[in-house]
Amino acid sequence: MMISSICFIFFLILSSSYAAVQDFCVADYTAPPGPAGYSCKNPSDVKVDDFVYSGLGVPGNYSKLNKVRLKAAFVAQFPGLNGLGISLARADMEVGGVVPMHTHRGASEVILVAEGKVIAGFIASDNKAYVKNLKKGDIMVLPRGLLHFQVNAGDTRALVFASFSSDDPGVQNLEKSLFQNDLRTELIAQTTLLDSAEIKKLKGLLGGTN
Amino acid sequence: MMISSICFIFFLILSSSYAAVQDFCVADYTAPPGPAGYSCKNPSDVKVDDFVYSGLGVPGNYSKLNKVRLKAAFVAQFPGLNGLGISLARADMEVGGVVPMHTHRGASEVILVAEGKVIAGFIASDNKAYVKNLKKGDIMVLPRGLLHFQVNAGDTRALVFASFSSDDPGVQNLEKSLFQNDLRTELIAQTTLLDSAEIKKLKGLLGGTN
Amino acid sequence: MMISSICFIFFLILSSSYAAVQDFCVADYTAPPGPAGYSCKNPSDVKVDDFVYSGLGVPGNYSKLNKVRLKAAFVAQFPGLNGLGISLARADMEVGGVVPMHTHRGASEVILVAEGKVIAGFIASDNKAYVKNLKKGDIMVLPRGLLHFQVNAGDTRALVFASFSSDDPGVQNLEKSLFQNDLRTELIAQTTLLDSAEIKKLKGLLGGTN
Amino acid sequence: MMISSICFIFFLILSSSYAAVQDFCVADYTAPPGPAGYSCKNPSDVKVDDFVYSGLGVPGNYSKLNKVRLKAAFVAQFPGLNGLGISLARADMEVGGVVPMHTHRGASEVILVAEGKVIAGFIASDNKAYVKNLKKGDIMVLPRGLLHFQVNAGDTRALVFASFSSDDPGVQNLEKSLFQNDLRTELIAQTTLLDSAEIKKLKGLLGGTN
Amino acid sequence: MMISSICFIFFLILSSSYAAVQDFCVADYTAPPGPAGYSCKNPSDVKVDDFVYSGLGVPGNYSKLNKVRLKAAFVAQFPGLNGLGISLARADMEVGGVVPMHTHRGASEVILVAEGKVIAGFIASDNKAYVKNLKKGDIMVLPRGLLHFQVNAGDTRALVFASFSSDDPGVQNLEKSLFQNDLRTELIAQTTLLDSAEIKKLKGLLGGTN
Amino acid sequence: MMISSICFIFFLILSSSYAAVQDFCVADYTAPPGPAGYSCKNPSDVKVDDFVYSGLGVPGNYSKLNKVRLKAAFVAQFPGLNGLGISLARADMEVGGVVPMHTHRGASEVILVAEGKVIAGFIASDNKAYVKNLKKGDIMVLPRGLLHFQVNAGDTRALVFASFSSDDPGVQNLEKSLFQNDLRTELIAQTTLLDSAEIKKLKGLLGGTN
Repeated sequence: MMISSICFIFFLILSSSYAAVQDFCVADYTAPPGPAGYSCKNPSDVKVDDFVYSGLGVPGNYSKLNKVRLKAAFVAQFPGLNGLGISLARADMEVGGVVPMHTHRGASEVILVAEGKVIAGFIASDNKAYVKNLKKGDIMVLPRGLLHFQVNAGDTRALVFASFSSDDPGVQNLEKSLFQNDLRTELIAQTTLLDSAEIKKLKGLLGGTN
Repeated sequence: MMISSICFIFFLILSSSYAAVQDFCVADYTAPPGPAGYSCKNPSDVKVDDFVYSGLGVPGNYSKLNKVRLKAAFVAQFPGLNGLGISLARADMEVGGVVPMHTHRGASEVILVAEGKVIAGFIASDNKAYVKNLKKGDIMVLPRGLLHFQVNAGDTRALVFASFSSDDPGVQNLEKSLFQNDLRTELIAQTTLLDSAEIKKLKGLLGGTN
Repeated sequence: MMISSICFIFFLILSSSYAAVQDFCVADYTAPPGPAGYSCKNPSDVKVDDFVYSGLGVPGNYSKLNKVRLKAAFVAQFPGLNGLGISLARADMEVGGVVPMHTHRGASEVILVAEGKVIAGFIASDNKAYVKNLKKGDIMVLPRGLLHFQVNAGDTRALVFASFSSDDPGVQNLEKSLFQNDLRTELIAQTTLLDSAEIKKLKGLLGGTN
Repeated sequence: MMISSICFIFFLILSSSYAAVQDFCVADYTAPPGPAGYSCKNPSDVKVDDFVYSGLGVPGNYSKLNKVRLKAAFVAQFPGLNGLGISLARADMEVGGVVPMHTHRGASEVILVAEGKVIAGFIASDNKAYVKNLKKGDIMVLPRGLLHFQVNAGDTRALVFASFSSDDPGVQNLEKSLFQNDLRTELIAQTTLLDSAEIKKLKGLLGGTN
Repeated sequence: MMISSICFIFFLILSSSYAAVQDFCVADYTAPPGPAGYSCKNPSDVKVDDFVYSGLGVPGNYSKLNKVRLKAAFVAQFPGLNGLGISLARADMEVGGVVPMHTHRGASEVILVAEGKVIAGFIASDNKAYVKNLKKGDIMVLPRGLLHFQVNAGDTRALVFASFSSDDPGVQNLEKSLFQNDLRTELIAQTTLLDSAEIKKLKGLLGGTN
Repeated sequence: MMISSICFIFFLILSSSYAAVQDFCVADYTAPPGPAGYSCKNPSDVKVDDFVYSGLGVPGNYSKLNKVRLKAAFVAQFPGLNGLGISLARADMEVGGVVPMHTHRGASEVILVAEGKVIAGFIASDNKAYVKNLKKGDIMVLPRGLLHFQVNAGDTRALVFASFSSDDPGVQNLEKSLFQNDLRTELIAQTTLLDSAEIKKLKGLLGGTN
């Protein structure tokens, strides 16, 4: 009977009308998403707090490997961004720290140096590298879908805020893509020209198998 | 038991396959929408009447304040428009009537003067006003997202049909945005330079508080 | 009780979180689609086989009328394409076979002649016909939304692979659109200038009524 | 010398800066267009009249064949629409007049019956015909890219205004596409199943050759 | 002769081929833009500095009226952003300073409080105000096309960085739109319900006429 | 004088009107492109051959390193594709040949195995590898922006045709991006965790410096 009641309540929730103006579509993580993003929370349940996120006020978890703390405010963390085509992230780089080589599927990025000195760069399809030393206040645009990276170029911590032209830009980290899964060493070697010993060493470091 | 049956029927409905060609996506207001619009009604339930709307055949409710009758055929009223990027509306302006200053988030609009004489205008980002006297049969385009308005410029009723480049253009009415909610008078005064007395007078007129 | 359990399980399934990165959105044909495509399968249920389709390895069903075998790998057949804006199809034309005059709502197409010789063409909005004899290895682009066709121009079978700029391009076959439904002969005659006798003959051939 | 001067002036015009906010992009028909539309007129040359069009105030030229007068306000006629994703047209149908079977590449349409009675319809990809008798004030949406038509269903003139979800929807008229060009009768017969005699008769009527 | 030479050089420049991969499209402000943005600089002339902008490192010009310094890094200031759908800006608010009520045509915005305390808010189409006190590190999303504002809520300077989902979001400042042009007082009064005396006072303050 | 004439002719060419229906926008490589693609050739100069490309009928140049012949039919090679959102390519893999690890900025790809046996795979943002053995006739979709590769898995040559959801997908080859430019070895080592000796070896092989 309790179960039936749950069903009934559930039925009622789903039956309620969504026929409202769509100024926004706050993500409802419990309903199936579609190619354009998450389903929308019922407008009557939306609160101002759905549009505010405090998680970027503090650094992310520490990666010993890259001496960096990364924290994202993408749509999976910040439901108010859903469908709005924009998101943010922060990177706190220790001295010697890096945001390793990576891509975002289809999103462009603008980085803003909030503290410290940074070398940032991207690589174009013709393999030309565009690399620049950035100081506090500088911004640099990293065109959509290309490999890019940042390195702390100073002797103090560096803080960078990144903005993306997508609310769900994704991150494809190069080292983890190659060395933190079960893709066979032989296939990696064949398709990257990297040496098998090198691949195995990095698989060991990052937890890859095969 | 009846409740369980409802659940079961509900379950069956949701389980049915939607694997069909999507020439159209008639809005189902009972399922959660997404950033691209409402969920689609099951194609097997779609009827020709889903693509027809008679509501624009008569004027909307009368607004004494603006001497105008506004009626929308947006996706919330006309389910066949869902996802198709177009919608319509009509404005019946009494002598002295106006369609007050407003914006549509991201949609462009073309107005067609069907009866009477109208002054229409929009304001560009550089604050330049583009204003024109329109006669019957004239059309004017109001570029997406900019403030615009219409005023009956004749001594007879005026009828205008508006078309939008979105099936859900929304309407942000300037006077109601500022004076028909609980936004504090002090905040409005600070961010608009309007006089507090004026703000309070209009809040009184439009039902705003604080 | 069993029914209640089904409801409960169903409830649990829907409650599970979808808050993941959306590299892809494999179609879930059992949930309601939206204007941007099908709902996404839960990422944890996605398998590599969702991204692979073997159906284009063999010809489709034979159409005696057009001496052609058509087979589509659109999103309704191949769930991994959902939201990715691309799809494929194959046409096996017997000697004398044709891919009859048709359009795809809004999608462009590129055909690749894999075997045989083909005459392909499209008609532009100014009624100009762009027609070309194609040999093995040639590709031809058919701009979005325009009438186009292919004819086997050789004395052997011809095989053509087609790619589309949409995962759900749809096919509006001209002969079937006019003659395989209940659209009244009189209306067809008035709106196409075709002779009523001709229309009735083709309705007979294709199964149309009225 | 005069020629050199023209060159110089021309050079100066092209050298001027376009670095302004783009609220709009009024079409400059003398510069090369791109996939997104025409080049923009220099903002300093834009006048309010670029956003106003009076051509829809009167009917178009008479087509004896279809007893209809068609007039478009697309971007090629109305430069202010450029890039804004919307356009209009009007159809004045005599008694017995029709807007013949046609498609718009990728654009959806909403028709509004301003005067008279109209039968309107479209055909879906599954060949189902959606047909409806419309009276004054009714609107009907014709989903993007599908064959559709209108017929005057009354004993008085009918006036229809059409709105499109594109500033350049194009029109592919079925009868003209097939019979008003040099596409060979044999190819048409093969790809449409129409009788060669019928094709030749209509080519004669519409001016087609071959 | 010199003029002819200029023409010839100009001719040569334009004749050069642009047939390259388009990872990016750095704005060329001297060629006509289109609806999708500025023309692209010839790839061979692109330098890493086209992707870097230092202008956000310092505050903008002081507005006495609003006690704020605003500075934009939109595509008109930062050519590397062209076509990439993202841009940034900074606002330095004195004690008592505000970013006045405004909209961006079609772009969403995320603000990041870098220093100080801020009250930020937006108004939805149903006139509901979403207002929140933000502290350092907080971010808030302001959905596309809606009126919004920020106020320094602390007793120290506040610094806010804003990111936009467009490289050319535009800014329509409410007070300037109404009071810094030649739109007639009578029209403003009719379409906003504001008192004529108030309008004239603000026109005086902001430089409007009529 | 001759130069002046050239200028004049040039002037005339540019002055001619482009006000035509845009069913297509064949690339004009001599005019500046924009973010949406190349400028359009004057419609009156368009020929059917602009829509046909024979270059995919033969394999591309041989890469000894990867034992593969790659050939693209992107918009830079095939002008008719401009703005249509689709393109093709072919890969001829010798025994032991590979299409090395790469990405396309923002475009999805579908591969079709025309001859031989192929192992194909892509890596998702969560580092999971999706790898599959494909036989003749199989197709596989590689979602936009992710690292992917193909390997000849048989003992005969393999031929693969690839279709892309963009007319200008670009190719970012991983090995060349890292090792065929002047990006400093130290930066590569820091941002990829690769060993400096390995980097230098591959720079030597691929022609990189620094």
